[in-house]
Amino acid sequence: VSITTLAERAVADSPSHRELLAGQKAETRRRILAAARKVFLGSGFMEANLSEVARVAGVGKGTLYRHFETKGDLYVAMLSEHGGSFLREMAEAFDPHAPTLTQIEQLGRFYLAFWKRHPEHFQLIWAVQNRDVVGSFSRERNDRLREVFEQPLRLLAALIRTGIEQGTVRPVDPWNSANALALSANAVAGPVVTHARPIVERDLDQVYEQLLDLFLAGLAMPPAGSSRPR
Amino acid sequence: VSITTLAERAVADSPSHRELLAGQKAETRRRILAAARKVFLGSGFMEANLSEVARVAGVGKGTLYRHFETKGDLYVAMLSEHGGSFLREMAEAFDPHAPTLTQIEQLGRFYLAFWKRHPEHFQLIWAVQNRDVVGSFSRERNDRLREVFEQPLRLLAALIRTGIEQGTVRPVDPWNSANALALSANAVAGPVVTHARPIVERDLDQVYEQLLDLFLAGLAMPPAGSSRPR
Repeated sequence: VSITTLAERAVADSPSHRELLAGQKAETRRRILAAARKVFLGSGFMEANLSEVARVAGVGKGTLYRHFETKGDLYVAMLSEHGGSFLREMAEAFDPHAPTLTQIEQLGRFYLAFWKRHPEHFQLIWAVQNRDVVGSFSRERNDRLREVFEQPLRLLAALIRTGIEQGTVRPVDPWNSANALALSANAVAGPVVTHARPIVERDLDQVYEQLLDLFLAGLAMPPAGSSRPR
Repeated sequence: VSITTLAERAVADSPSHRELLAGQKAETRRRILAAARKVFLGSGFMEANLSEVARVAGVGKGTLYRHFETKGDLYVAMLSEHGGSFLREMAEAFDPHAPTLTQIEQLGRFYLAFWKRHPEHFQLIWAVQNRDVVGSFSRERNDRLREVFEQPLRLLAALIRTGIEQGTVRPVDPWNSANALALSANAVAGPVVTHARPIVERDLDQVYEQLLDLFLAGLAMPPAGSSRPR
């Protein structure tokens, strides 16, 4: 490799002024989102205010408003980011070449493990269940949110559909089954993650395992020719 | 039947002074509980206050305090009452002579129907999930609450155990399975009952049906000699 070539490469690799600005902008956005996470977790969505977020992020209010016009924008951006990391980590957690029911099992195990790794995401995401929060969102923002929530559900439904086509999964309704699984998994994982004070004493990790076992057995196609006892 | 006998009967049937007082006390208690339900649903547990409850019930504060010393006592009494009607209505909803899996299915259908009939119970009961509420309860009150929550769970676990003994249910863990079922059923029934604003569009009644179908298939013992595909 000649010196000239190296120099040419260095020039080619050095970021343009435009790229530098874009990098700075992304970095500021990242800092604002990290600050928002702290503030939202501390005071909750309703009480959180943008001046506080700007202060914690160490940026001016003008800068913050250039990135996010309203608290709702900031919240939706935060959830989109979480949705992104959920999908990335999920993609690594399961083996696309394993049998379909094994993939669903891997997904189920990943789900609890993910929330245990990121309990703060869980709290932020479920704030959205609050009528007052979602009620204040524009249609466009609701659509973005729906996208974040629906992507993993659609993937699970697609897995179930594949299993049905392959004959390893009973002919259930894929979309309703995916929703049943996700809501159930949430109901058990939630108290684990938020350390809710238990009234009924139950080992929620064990309940989660049992839930997964029941769903997998419930999805599995019974052996050909057999009639399921009911 | 002689006149003397009738007179004797009338005396025997007429309530004693003690019984009259007990009846009045029960009626006052009933009125206070009905008022508490209104006030708690209106302002939530944390904001609700006993003077307001006394006013709505039309009793003096002294009378209220003779029945319930604290807001916590009142809340737990209210939930115990709900727990009682839950168990009574449940007992009528399923046929103890039907096959075990059918009984579990009947219980599952009853569960959603009950919350639809009594949405206000659902809201009151789930207030208890709030850390601040339960955190303020004495050990004794927590034990009463646990009893209310655990009774239906124990019944479901007993049904599952019976099914296992009869060979119609797979050898799952009865307690963990009962908890998995109850938490899942809640997770789907909750948004139906509270009319939560949906983010993901799903027909929750259909999701509930699918959930029940998956659980029943997951509980069912596969035909003898067959190996379940996984």
